[in-house]
Amino acid sequence: MKLLKFETPGISHYAYLLADGGEAAIVDPRRDIQEYVDAARSIGVRIRYVLETHRQEDFVMGSNAIRQHTGAEIINGTHEIFSYGDRHLEDGEDFELGSLKIVARYTPGHTPESMCWVVYPKEHEDDAWGVFTGDTLFFGDTGRSDLPDQERAVENAGVMYDSVHRALAPLGDATQIFPAHGPGSVCGAGMAERSSSTLGVEKTYNPVFLEDRDRFAKKKGEESKLIPRPPYFRHMERVNLEGGLLPPKGPGTVAVLSPSAFHDAAGDGKIIDIREPEAFAGAHIPDAYSVWLGGLPIFGGWVASHEDAIYLCTDDNAQIERAYRHLTRIGLDDVRGAVGFSKWRGSAQPMRRGGAITPTELRGASGLQILDVREAGEFESGHIDGAKNVYVGHLEEKLGDLGFDKDKPVVVTCGVGHRAGVGVSILLRAGYKDVRNLIGGMKRWSKLEG
Amino acid sequence: MKLLKFETPGISHYAYLLADGGEAAIVDPRRDIQEYVDAARSIGVRIRYVLETHRQEDFVMGSNAIRQHTGAEIINGTHEIFSYGDRHLEDGEDFELGSLKIVARYTPGHTPESMCWVVYPKEHEDDAWGVFTGDTLFFGDTGRSDLPDQERAVENAGVMYDSVHRALAPLGDATQIFPAHGPGSVCGAGMAERSSSTLGVEKTYNPVFLEDRDRFAKKKGEESKLIPRPPYFRHMERVNLEGGLLPPKGPGTVAVLSPSAFHDAAGDGKIIDIREPEAFAGAHIPDAYSVWLGGLPIFGGWVASHEDAIYLCTDDNAQIERAYRHLTRIGLDDVRGAVGFSKWRGSAQPMRRGGAITPTELRGASGLQILDVREAGEFESGHIDGAKNVYVGHLEEKLGDLGFDKDKPVVVTCGVGHRAGVGVSILLRAGYKDVRNLIGGMKRWSKLEG
Amino acid sequence: MKLLKFETPGISHYAYLLADGGEAAIVDPRRDIQEYVDAARSIGVRIRYVLETHRQEDFVMGSNAIRQHTGAEIINGTHEIFSYGDRHLEDGEDFELGSLKIVARYTPGHTPESMCWVVYPKEHEDDAWGVFTGDTLFFGDTGRSDLPDQERAVENAGVMYDSVHRALAPLGDATQIFPAHGPGSVCGAGMAERSSSTLGVEKTYNPVFLEDRDRFAKKKGEESKLIPRPPYFRHMERVNLEGGLLPPKGPGTVAVLSPSAFHDAAGDGKIIDIREPEAFAGAHIPDAYSVWLGGLPIFGGWVASHEDAIYLCTDDNAQIERAYRHLTRIGLDDVRGAVGFSKWRGSAQPMRRGGAITPTELRGASGLQILDVREAGEFESGHIDGAKNVYVGHLEEKLGDLGFDKDKPVVVTCGVGHRAGVGVSILLRAGYKDVRNLIGGMKRWSKLEG
Amino acid sequence: MKLLKFETPGISHYAYLLADGGEAAIVDPRRDIQEYVDAARSIGVRIRYVLETHRQEDFVMGSNAIRQHTGAEIINGTHEIFSYGDRHLEDGEDFELGSLKIVARYTPGHTPESMCWVVYPKEHEDDAWGVFTGDTLFFGDTGRSDLPDQERAVENAGVMYDSVHRALAPLGDATQIFPAHGPGSVCGAGMAERSSSTLGVEKTYNPVFLEDRDRFAKKKGEESKLIPRPPYFRHMERVNLEGGLLPPKGPGTVAVLSPSAFHDAAGDGKIIDIREPEAFAGAHIPDAYSVWLGGLPIFGGWVASHEDAIYLCTDDNAQIERAYRHLTRIGLDDVRGAVGFSKWRGSAQPMRRGGAITPTELRGASGLQILDVREAGEFESGHIDGAKNVYVGHLEEKLGDLGFDKDKPVVVTCGVGHRAGVGVSILLRAGYKDVRNLIGGMKRWSKLEG
Repeated sequence: MKLLKFETPGISHYAYLLADGGEAAIVDPRRDIQEYVDAARSIGVRIRYVLETHRQEDFVMGSNAIRQHTGAEIINGTHEIFSYGDRHLEDGEDFELGSLKIVARYTPGHTPESMCWVVYPKEHEDDAWGVFTGDTLFFGDTGRSDLPDQERAVENAGVMYDSVHRALAPLGDATQIFPAHGPGSVCGAGMAERSSSTLGVEKTYNPVFLEDRDRFAKKKGEESKLIPRPPYFRHMERVNLEGGLLPPKGPGTVAVLSPSAFHDAAGDGKIIDIREPEAFAGAHIPDAYSVWLGGLPIFGGWVASHEDAIYLCTDDNAQIERAYRHLTRIGLDDVRGAVGFSKWRGSAQPMRRGGAITPTELRGASGLQILDVREAGEFESGHIDGAKNVYVGHLEEKLGDLGFDKDKPVVVTCGVGHRAGVGVSILLRAGYKDVRNLIGGMKRWSKLEG
Repeated sequence: MKLLKFETPGISHYAYLLADGGEAAIVDPRRDIQEYVDAARSIGVRIRYVLETHRQEDFVMGSNAIRQHTGAEIINGTHEIFSYGDRHLEDGEDFELGSLKIVARYTPGHTPESMCWVVYPKEHEDDAWGVFTGDTLFFGDTGRSDLPDQERAVENAGVMYDSVHRALAPLGDATQIFPAHGPGSVCGAGMAERSSSTLGVEKTYNPVFLEDRDRFAKKKGEESKLIPRPPYFRHMERVNLEGGLLPPKGPGTVAVLSPSAFHDAAGDGKIIDIREPEAFAGAHIPDAYSVWLGGLPIFGGWVASHEDAIYLCTDDNAQIERAYRHLTRIGLDDVRGAVGFSKWRGSAQPMRRGGAITPTELRGASGLQILDVREAGEFESGHIDGAKNVYVGHLEEKLGDLGFDKDKPVVVTCGVGHRAGVGVSILLRAGYKDVRNLIGGMKRWSKLEG
Repeated sequence: MKLLKFETPGISHYAYLLADGGEAAIVDPRRDIQEYVDAARSIGVRIRYVLETHRQEDFVMGSNAIRQHTGAEIINGTHEIFSYGDRHLEDGEDFELGSLKIVARYTPGHTPESMCWVVYPKEHEDDAWGVFTGDTLFFGDTGRSDLPDQERAVENAGVMYDSVHRALAPLGDATQIFPAHGPGSVCGAGMAERSSSTLGVEKTYNPVFLEDRDRFAKKKGEESKLIPRPPYFRHMERVNLEGGLLPPKGPGTVAVLSPSAFHDAAGDGKIIDIREPEAFAGAHIPDAYSVWLGGLPIFGGWVASHEDAIYLCTDDNAQIERAYRHLTRIGLDDVRGAVGFSKWRGSAQPMRRGGAITPTELRGASGLQILDVREAGEFESGHIDGAKNVYVGHLEEKLGDLGFDKDKPVVVTCGVGHRAGVGVSILLRAGYKDVRNLIGGMKRWSKLEG
Repeated sequence: MKLLKFETPGISHYAYLLADGGEAAIVDPRRDIQEYVDAARSIGVRIRYVLETHRQEDFVMGSNAIRQHTGAEIINGTHEIFSYGDRHLEDGEDFELGSLKIVARYTPGHTPESMCWVVYPKEHEDDAWGVFTGDTLFFGDTGRSDLPDQERAVENAGVMYDSVHRALAPLGDATQIFPAHGPGSVCGAGMAERSSSTLGVEKTYNPVFLEDRDRFAKKKGEESKLIPRPPYFRHMERVNLEGGLLPPKGPGTVAVLSPSAFHDAAGDGKIIDIREPEAFAGAHIPDAYSVWLGGLPIFGGWVASHEDAIYLCTDDNAQIERAYRHLTRIGLDDVRGAVGFSKWRGSAQPMRRGGAITPTELRGASGLQILDVREAGEFESGHIDGAKNVYVGHLEEKLGDLGFDKDKPVVVTCGVGHRAGVGVSILLRAGYKDVRNLIGGMKRWSKLEG
């Protein structure tokens, strides 16, 4: 028996390969499936099944891709959302993988179709070895409950509580849990930085076991509504209703362009500058969005949609492939071209300086308009006097509500400066004259305050 | 300016990436194009063109694949065989790549459409820096001349002679030559083991420059007819008439099977054992063909066709990917499953011992039927007394002509034992009882003789 | 917090990297430390500690290598065997790693110095998250108890029982266990094929929790004495008494030789043929030992010592590096040269055919001398009528006791044919004329019997 | 026969592996030899020789490292500088490698010991296939002639001219040339962007063939004196007098530090910020030198010496290994720690904003002090009115001569902004208050001018 875990960076998504007796199941795969397929071959096992815990919202699923590539069967639940599957198991039904028995548990709450899959050695059918918990149970947290219907977030949190207590709690402290996400995901807010866990550990630390149903449901439901819901979720819901998309054509389709060719082409699309915020502050291409490489799988989906032609600005060609992976994992496939800033810098194409300010400088300054682009919950836990709060994802549509003077300096802040960079670029695109990223953000600010 | 060379192992095929001023041309690509695309991205250039010297016979071309993947244009000649191209240049016409000028030369002979492409720096238009020679001029040799029409092999060799002397000879000794094949290819017989060369070097060593037209044409024409022509060439001609095929689905589609699943499935297809001949001699799956891994791109195409389902036997799962690459490069895409001999060995599935004999043993033996499966030319240059010669590629169809007694031992030999292994497996499949591979082949035999 | 697991193939050794707050500890490293160091850099953490559970017997430790390479401190216990360490913790003492508290538990039994290390989040000091158990507690088994003194194996098994029940049992079912070995190791016999486990899971399955002290101690002690103890263990004990050796010079020191150069050089050393047993049966270099690649970390240490010059025969140059890793991990550093059998085959150097026989053939034969080279325990669980049993590791010294006729055929068998291959080569070296490997071994034999 | 070329990025150094008949020579290796050793093993050849063209000045040689690692012999010339070699060949002497004959030619000029090595196939001893030319003949240029003695640069250029015409010119146009450096090296100024070349090509383009001896010697000698000579050359001369250094301990010795640990430690050493200049302009660690990653192999040697402890600031941990390689290749081995700017940004450690200005802004400004840090020759070919020129390498020692007001803004420029970044950081360290990098440098400036 062998269990391998695959992490998708940026969205903290975990897929798994569970193998026994020469056959394997891939649990909750993403769309670019090569890593799973290579791993299976290297340990000499055949991918027989794709096992799904739920329809994902935050990335394009790879169930279909694996089915087409390897001939594997998709196993999921009986809810109609799962209709593209090949075998639909009800709560309590099971299937075999080598010497393992894998039992379906229906665990609605995060979404109405959510399943967990409990793994037993056949010879000890009473003792669960581990359980794939999807977004039902995380390390230190549970999934958000607002996705199917924001109005019923509290109600659904209660349903999730029941699922956990009915289907998972009885499995025994020794059972290992294998969730679909880790800390950093937008599918939950309070995940613990554990690299592995057990039901016993969760019973000690996880609110779903420490609080009563009402308190848990209320808190989780309210908190879920506060987590931003990126616009690309809609597109994911649609494509994942059919088991996801096939792998994208490949980063080879992203042309490395000269500055003038880039400038000519990018007029029809959106430019995303994937460098770090300090580099954007140094100099950049006018009208580019600033979304640092690691932030693409989430904030790429706020500034662009699957209908946009996307053009990348980078200072390292090796990052093109990673950027392409990040974007296509959320369905943004139309990435057409890239330009190195090292080429742009020395060209005759338009270039603009950005702006930066340090917390130390800000403390000595006055009369600045301050915009905090963090989530409401973060803002409430402490912010700079006089700062206005608009979440970065909503900034573009709420520009009119800002009430700032475009000709006077604006300072944008967030946690450490990444999301602020996105915000800076949105304000510059909107015609603000002097926009400065507070480098180090509230993290540095609060340390200097202390 | 940058020139990268990509070698396809097994068929000694060379493709090239020529880049200047941020743009690149790929010359004579194979179907699995990822290596070219990755190289272009890593040096930060855009693939603008596919440049073709001729329609390949010995592998599936990747021109179409690159066009679809990157949007590049296919540039070739005006012969109708090239009709799938995007831009057709006549002899003497040129196009630009960065600061380079690339001039088309029409050089028929190897095939009627063959082109060479001469590279000049624009500022020195009189001095050729290098030339892509396709199969017209190799290191120490020229391409075979029998492919379009075996009857006119001598005539076509003369045409090729004229092409070389008219279009290439005047370029100057200092011009580097970049051919489409190196030693080991079935597209020529006498290539030199040089890793690079110049026109001046070739003028010193290459028969096309050392002999007169008549003598050259006669020799080359006759010799070309003797080079075997694998049956998959027909399929290549067909698919390459449309610029080749898209990349295959991937080695992930090759299921790693248990011995019993393999046994059940492989009944409908052909089993190819890709281990070395000694391992096949030790023990193997009955009815398997023995084609060592490195020999698949040529001998795989003799024992199987693109209509066969193929099943592999290996002793190292890491070889599945390489075997898959070898086979799909000649259009054998339907590779369905693989089994490790380490699993088979301990299973209850049928297994047979093969046979081996050393040259020393053979010298002490008598009354053995000896089959030499090398090419006629090799056989003529020296062989074991009493040996019968049938080329390994023709063995299966000429089994009836052998006149051997199936119940008496047969010794099979070739150069060192690889092709003999293919021959051994063909005889065993045909019901011969005791078939032995002469390990070390004629190479060891002749050393012991000496 | 992050836990990475590193597996050393062939000896099923597990090392770990535990990181929190930017700093990391490496637990029980092997000597070639590059993989650990690269992993730490890629996740951006600094290696501060080497944590040891015990002095390893089956491989060269890398504690010293990491200390010298990174400046890390070696943390172990207070037993004198650990004297090369930098910090010696007594039972119950602890140290901190980021936000984690790591508590030392003294758990003698497997060896007198054995320690376990329990990991707690500082904010929940009562609930153990996991424990590094070394060779004290495996998945489904415990370590062998005969190593310090074979006479006291039963007594030491009782000590180990007490250690487990005193120091580990109270930690709670939810605690994950991280042992130093998995199935396939010579440090224990009955390890389960689980890829991860918890104390709760072990309480359900593991004999140390299911049996009473006396019964456990007797069974474990007796069984431990039956596990072979390779001669290289002595060398490991010596070098590991100083924290192990620095990384070896590298596979670049293994010269790829021509057959004649290999023949000339290897006379002073030992030749090991690392191909699979069927290939050895096909043909091989006279006087070579046959030890398949994957068996080198154990059987390499039976046929050669750290004082031998070693020469490798392979059919794939890419395997030289893996063979070198395997050998140097058990202190066999003097690997001088390698030759490809593909070169040897066609050379004039001496070559010998081996022999193979299938179970089906054996059943039809009679009068054969049969040697079974498995461990005594395996032999007792079922064998071929009339077979004689000598463990492969002891075969060379017990050749005189065999009582076989060297001029008559001998069949050698084991599980599936790997160890039999070693045995075949030992008999051939000893002058036996006709030695055949029973391909598929007892595994295939018993299936045909059924 | 096989020739492989290995490029060392940053210093445009070329080493070669020439193999024939199973044995190989490595020509002019650098100190970290793993790439050469791996390549030899993968093509199955044994490294028998290290072949040297001259004692390198711009990197640490790996001759000794290969000798110690593989047992190879060092072959070089008879000059006393070469005394650490194993075999010293005079002009005209030769040695054999497989079927090749390699003839020594003594070609002083670049340095007094310089050799070229001409490769002939043994069966055609009159026709040179290629020649390793070291720094004597480049593509489009020759080596600098000032290194042994700046006073005699013109004289030595004449000696080099004679060497080329005596030893290389007669080899014939078709001979390929394999130099030790390509464009971007500090060992020559005017190298062409060709990826390969022949003697015939060079005869057409290269000044050493186009000009007469006097004119060539005067021009080359004067020009050589203008090429900067980094201070680390002295250290290279010393260590290379013994065949270079062994490979450095490895990037694992570079500790990834927390901001506070970095701050505490770096006080004793030099901080080098390896990010791009725009990022440095955005924000940086006070007192850091700014040397972009690709510039480390040259400018790292201007700002630090082998006696300095070096600390790196990066925004990508994956760059630590490359930075370490760059630095240790020029003997800067004491790289102690690294910090990610993404961690620094949010810490409480000191942080400073830099400054940037675009050419467009500069044109609209007035009263600025402008510093151009390019080489004198570049400056003379065109510069901004009123700019003062001090080469970046000499800036630190010539700060006193600048005559600038530290309290008024300074704009620093170079080609596109990289070297200006180094200059900016030097001025900031010296107490200048407001220093701005002209992003895009003279390249963008001149395009806007046009």
